[in-house]
Amino acid sequence: MEKIKVAIVGYGNIGKYSLDAVLAASDMECVGVVRRSGNAGEYRELQDFKVVSDIRDLGKVDVAILATPSRSVKENAEKYLKMGISTVDSFDIHSQIWDLRKDLDPIAKEGNAVSIISAGWDPGSDSVVRALMEALAPKGISYTNFGPGRSMGHSVVAKSKEGVVDALSLTIPKGTGLHRRMVYVQLEEGADFDQVTADILADPYFSSDETHVIRVGSIDDINDVGHGVAMARKGVSGKTHNQLFKFSMKINNPALTGQVLVSCARAAVKQKPGCYTMIEIPVIDLLEGEPEELIKRLV
Amino acid sequence: MEKIKVAIVGYGNIGKYSLDAVLAASDMECVGVVRRSGNAGEYRELQDFKVVSDIRDLGKVDVAILATPSRSVKENAEKYLKMGISTVDSFDIHSQIWDLRKDLDPIAKEGNAVSIISAGWDPGSDSVVRALMEALAPKGISYTNFGPGRSMGHSVVAKSKEGVVDALSLTIPKGTGLHRRMVYVQLEEGADFDQVTADILADPYFSSDETHVIRVGSIDDINDVGHGVAMARKGVSGKTHNQLFKFSMKINNPALTGQVLVSCARAAVKQKPGCYTMIEIPVIDLLEGEPEELIKRLV
Repeated sequence: MEKIKVAIVGYGNIGKYSLDAVLAASDMECVGVVRRSGNAGEYRELQDFKVVSDIRDLGKVDVAILATPSRSVKENAEKYLKMGISTVDSFDIHSQIWDLRKDLDPIAKEGNAVSIISAGWDPGSDSVVRALMEALAPKGISYTNFGPGRSMGHSVVAKSKEGVVDALSLTIPKGTGLHRRMVYVQLEEGADFDQVTADILADPYFSSDETHVIRVGSIDDINDVGHGVAMARKGVSGKTHNQLFKFSMKINNPALTGQVLVSCARAAVKQKPGCYTMIEIPVIDLLEGEPEELIKRLV
Repeated sequence: MEKIKVAIVGYGNIGKYSLDAVLAASDMECVGVVRRSGNAGEYRELQDFKVVSDIRDLGKVDVAILATPSRSVKENAEKYLKMGISTVDSFDIHSQIWDLRKDLDPIAKEGNAVSIISAGWDPGSDSVVRALMEALAPKGISYTNFGPGRSMGHSVVAKSKEGVVDALSLTIPKGTGLHRRMVYVQLEEGADFDQVTADILADPYFSSDETHVIRVGSIDDINDVGHGVAMARKGVSGKTHNQLFKFSMKINNPALTGQVLVSCARAAVKQKPGCYTMIEIPVIDLLEGEPEELIKRLV
């Protein structure tokens, strides 16, 4: 059987882990990496792959994994979908997911390609669990508790404050969907820690959560990409109350994101043209193997 | 919008809870119940519904919920699918699921109808979680631990032994997918408890698990339909080891089965003709509501 031809667009953390997951899948091959520079740069492991600045130089590509920041997902997805190349991304701005799906859907259909958006772990696989739990108990309350682990978005915001060299914002779950933020900052010489703390606490990213700012000598020395989630739903099946469901994980954050992107790249080649979120895709399509073997083993 | 017209076939435990779940869904109506007797019998709550022995007496039916024992699922499904009525069932003989799907698929297509099989919690919603966990960590080991709770199948087998009036077999999880069976028996007068114990321990249903047989005065007095499951997967995302995932629930067993059947009845009207297991269906199709609202709220 012919392998799925995958290109990786962007080679930061998520791009690297996506490459790992493509190489671990026997039904896929990495046909190359797209980087603005068009070369492998300092990455030795890329010497075995074609690195280009224009995806058209890679020949036939079935799916492009967009391992780029959320803010550039739309532009990249549009470009590739118009070329007839399917895309997957881990777009994570929850409030804009529906709009992105609505915008990309006609473009994907016109390009005869598939776009699977927000294919990370939250949004992404957690969304599938949230939807499933609601199907099991349509009435009730669900909680998604994040952490303990590093929030990429909050870390970037803390780092952007004047006087901050580097920052790491840990998300600590307080339960029932509430979180505490532990913000570690590495300061420039002479920076005013009290002012930095005030700036962070006043930022909308932090102002509605309990937040603690802590000064450290080096962010590098405390960095860890482990993360976790604990979801729970208590609700009603039919007329029967007190039905309890829990899902939790402890994971390497970018490794799981890379794996979800790659599993969704496999699903992309099985869908009809259009744009999808993960809850709109049969879970079996994420898996390598024939339906008979998968159904016999997993159902 | 027109409501989905649902008929319930069989009115045991699962049928009753399925009716609860249909009544709790604002996009469905119960058009009637099919019983061999053709009447409501001792069930007062059925006086508000049409009860018939032949489904054709109910007028238009979109989906028939087969709340019948697994062994009669195939015959019933074939009959209704040929009439163009979609079916859902909670067929639970794991080793025969693929064959059932293969047999019903062409019949469903010919009848221009949809069959969703093995739509309970295991097989069923647990299967979706098992498949999802494998998509998140393709290499690794998954465990499904059942209980504590009553095993219907094991209880029936224990009850079938000579000298047993009634029996209840509790499944107790030992972890890593191993289980202990606690079998409570209510005996006939003069029955030989040692012989009953030997008969149960020798049965293939029990012979490979640690099994304890306990004599009680009345099964009715100890019966409880609570059940539980704890699933776990430890595995590899890409090349990154030690990724941990857990799913657990504590539930009323027939209430959850009835709810899953009803959520799948909703999904049945959204699929193309054919036979499906739950891992082949987008999770969003199980839910009431418009895609925009569901995606904005759950993804």
